[in-house]
Amino acid sequence: MRTTARVRRVRDGRLEFSREWLQLRNPYAPIEVLTAEQIETIHDASMSVLEDVGMRIQDEETRKLFASAGFAVDHATERVVFDREGLLALVAKAPPVVTVRGRDPAKKLFMGQGQVAFTAVSGPPFVSDLDHGRRAGTFRDQENFLKMTHMTDVLQIEGGTSVEAQDLPADTRYLDFYLACCKLSDKPWKPLTIGRHRARDAIEMAKIWYGEDEDSLAANPVFFVNTNTNTPLVLDGEIAQGVIEYARLGQVVCVTPFGLAGAMAPATVAGALVMQNAETLACCALTQIIRPGCPYIYGGFICNADMKTGSPAFGTPEFTLGAQATGQMARRYGLPWRSSNVNASNAPDAQAAYESMMSLWGALTGHASVFNHGAGWLEGGLVGSYEKFILDIEMVRMMCAWMKPLTVNADTIGLDSIKEVGPGGHFFGTAHTLARYENAFYKPLVSDWSNFENWQDKGSPDAARRANGIWKQMVNEYEAPAIDPAVIEELEDYVARRKIELDALR
Amino acid sequence: MRTTARVRRVRDGRLEFSREWLQLRNPYAPIEVLTAEQIETIHDASMSVLEDVGMRIQDEETRKLFASAGFAVDHATERVVFDREGLLALVAKAPPVVTVRGRDPAKKLFMGQGQVAFTAVSGPPFVSDLDHGRRAGTFRDQENFLKMTHMTDVLQIEGGTSVEAQDLPADTRYLDFYLACCKLSDKPWKPLTIGRHRARDAIEMAKIWYGEDEDSLAANPVFFVNTNTNTPLVLDGEIAQGVIEYARLGQVVCVTPFGLAGAMAPATVAGALVMQNAETLACCALTQIIRPGCPYIYGGFICNADMKTGSPAFGTPEFTLGAQATGQMARRYGLPWRSSNVNASNAPDAQAAYESMMSLWGALTGHASVFNHGAGWLEGGLVGSYEKFILDIEMVRMMCAWMKPLTVNADTIGLDSIKEVGPGGHFFGTAHTLARYENAFYKPLVSDWSNFENWQDKGSPDAARRANGIWKQMVNEYEAPAIDPAVIEELEDYVARRKIELDALR
Repeated sequence: MRTTARVRRVRDGRLEFSREWLQLRNPYAPIEVLTAEQIETIHDASMSVLEDVGMRIQDEETRKLFASAGFAVDHATERVVFDREGLLALVAKAPPVVTVRGRDPAKKLFMGQGQVAFTAVSGPPFVSDLDHGRRAGTFRDQENFLKMTHMTDVLQIEGGTSVEAQDLPADTRYLDFYLACCKLSDKPWKPLTIGRHRARDAIEMAKIWYGEDEDSLAANPVFFVNTNTNTPLVLDGEIAQGVIEYARLGQVVCVTPFGLAGAMAPATVAGALVMQNAETLACCALTQIIRPGCPYIYGGFICNADMKTGSPAFGTPEFTLGAQATGQMARRYGLPWRSSNVNASNAPDAQAAYESMMSLWGALTGHASVFNHGAGWLEGGLVGSYEKFILDIEMVRMMCAWMKPLTVNADTIGLDSIKEVGPGGHFFGTAHTLARYENAFYKPLVSDWSNFENWQDKGSPDAARRANGIWKQMVNEYEAPAIDPAVIEELEDYVARRKIELDALR
Repeated sequence: MRTTARVRRVRDGRLEFSREWLQLRNPYAPIEVLTAEQIETIHDASMSVLEDVGMRIQDEETRKLFASAGFAVDHATERVVFDREGLLALVAKAPPVVTVRGRDPAKKLFMGQGQVAFTAVSGPPFVSDLDHGRRAGTFRDQENFLKMTHMTDVLQIEGGTSVEAQDLPADTRYLDFYLACCKLSDKPWKPLTIGRHRARDAIEMAKIWYGEDEDSLAANPVFFVNTNTNTPLVLDGEIAQGVIEYARLGQVVCVTPFGLAGAMAPATVAGALVMQNAETLACCALTQIIRPGCPYIYGGFICNADMKTGSPAFGTPEFTLGAQATGQMARRYGLPWRSSNVNASNAPDAQAAYESMMSLWGALTGHASVFNHGAGWLEGGLVGSYEKFILDIEMVRMMCAWMKPLTVNADTIGLDSIKEVGPGGHFFGTAHTLARYENAFYKPLVSDWSNFENWQDKGSPDAARRANGIWKQMVNEYEAPAIDPAVIEELEDYVARRKIELDALR
């Protein structure tokens, strides 16, 4: 297992990212912010919510699936009520570690039990950079984020429309997105979950891209799909249909309640944890009814409304505590879990960085298995920011380097060199130092450690300004992965055919 | 024990910091990055360094003290060599928890065994703000940092010249600094350690300020002094004399090796940990020879040189790992330990924030007992930054809020409100939410969570720009603590007399 994320500028000034497949693992014990008793209190309260209130499931087929598993269903009110024994028996069928893979079969990714993956940001309607400010996302921006994700070893999974292509027709642009994923990268991509047809098209295109049949895709999953409940206690019908399609094929499903504490959940982290636990476990049960053993990722996203303005807050102390507590809840059920790298800043500034760091530290010390929104999220997720993408890559790389345990032995300590240098000497020229000169320490992507005068001579560029230069360089230096042109042609034909079919339905 | 750090703007727009005395405690288990075996490997190697190489101690009195304790001394080469049994027997005399106190005797601060304190930045020769850029520090800047430190509940100890007053005579400005500490705050202050007379004057002024004799100051320490070795393996003579004075009076002494890995220490974290351990334990032994049971804080500051440029790097993954490992080493000897909130950025930007966060998280999850440079450090410590001071206060406040454990019980979960709201409702108006409206969640000082349009209407201020407004407001709203004018008069007389004496010596 390799945990070194490397980037450096080689002599000709090009960015050189490691091309190694990066299977990250957190080697340290998780931080536990809940006592064992508190975990059971949250568990018990969430079971009580599911038993006494249940969920509104806005799709008849889904309700029938729940009914088939013995849960009480009222189709008139769309309410499904759960008994805890039945629910927990289903949850117990989900595996503790899940996998997805890229087009290269060697690029298989494990998530769970300390193993962790990062995806790019998912879903912003807007995009921004320092040159042109904030604007509606376009297909070109979407492509650029795909290219940067492909170039970045610390993002192992595409984000799932890192920017919305608002310049393409709304009904069919998911097809353009799927096709771009297939053309621009060989990393696993995250298809959309809203509506059965979006799931079916993703699966059909995956069959072409991977060159496999459904049995093969099911045996060795390719998709990590993330969707949400409408907290409190509602599962949307179109989302449910998407979940059903992916679960039928045994792909990795994650349903994340987005319950802003104080708005869609009680105004406490404890109350929000109860809501989250109830909703994601109910959705886990759904996947296990459809396909026992279906890989499921517990969806974690505890955040709160600013009680003064109603604005959502991200990367706060509550987010951090919520992430660490979510990890404990997910481990109680033996499930991998998902978190995020988020912030509420309007600019790629110090706030964006420290809120992101609160997210990253909370989630990683809580042993998150996968990060949605690993890079590029700004403005509470409304904007995909080019510069924040680069700043996030730096922060994630730092966390990856932290996850590489120290090597402590006679060789790394270099007692002989300490004795050779003696009091008042220096280590610059020792054999011990020279042997480590090249790769001794973390090499930054954005951070500038030059002294003030040198930095001033460069024009005093702050971190966001430097990130602006780096993302352009990354897009310029992008190289597409090799793929059989016949596969692309087949995918293009598929998309063209489906667009005609969808147009005909309008 | 209170762990809530609060600030809010009350209706008239004034900043309102909590005036409560803040005794912070980290309630979670530390992150352990070293195995038990690795701890012993580092211990053994550092003992070997002290036994085979020893330290150069550049003060005869100090060498004689070491000789009196049975260590081998060569006055010609200034070398002291240690046997591990003798050294460890002395180290074992130092207590696991240390205290200092402010002028108000109720404001007593505990450090060690998870209890933690923050000081302001210490020692920058330069100062900067967004209005006037980077410039030599002045006495007025020093006063402003003292005022801001006094106003800030998350900094419990003054920094020790947060900015150097370069506009005052170099020989005597420490007296102006001590006097300013006595006038502008009632928090404990950090006197200088270089030279016996600087220590003696601090003690004499403390006797006046606290209105106590030396026995009383010794019984209940008032000073936390931090100084450094000259890594590798050198203790400066003037520093040693300062340490001796403070240790004789039983004040809290911390000696921090500053061994940049790859320059003054081997180019590995493991090697730097060995050097650090050897040097700080030797200095701990010195304090215990002088006064058995003298409170001593293990000095931790692992960082590295950028091997490309030689520049020091701070807040890197190595710093984080080094801090967590340092905590394990300090706990091995039952000592409290000191860390820092540091970065190498030239501007109060995203880099400054994410490097600071790497420091804060590493040190706090390593159970640091006290932070030097808790707020205001920029440019690797060359600059005291007004804006970074405010950004740091926000980050430290977030960490303080994180250290407040979740309350999970029937009351906080609010099961009744969840059942009352039901699927698809909202929690804005529930009794459970209304009861928590005011203090439900973390309230930021700098972070702006307003939406893009509102933020744009304010002129799109980034976090540094907002911090600029806040530090000015903080300085403007500063209120001096009450103190008997006769005490100030006596201190002023003391300083005037000492200046005449020092001038006569020139």
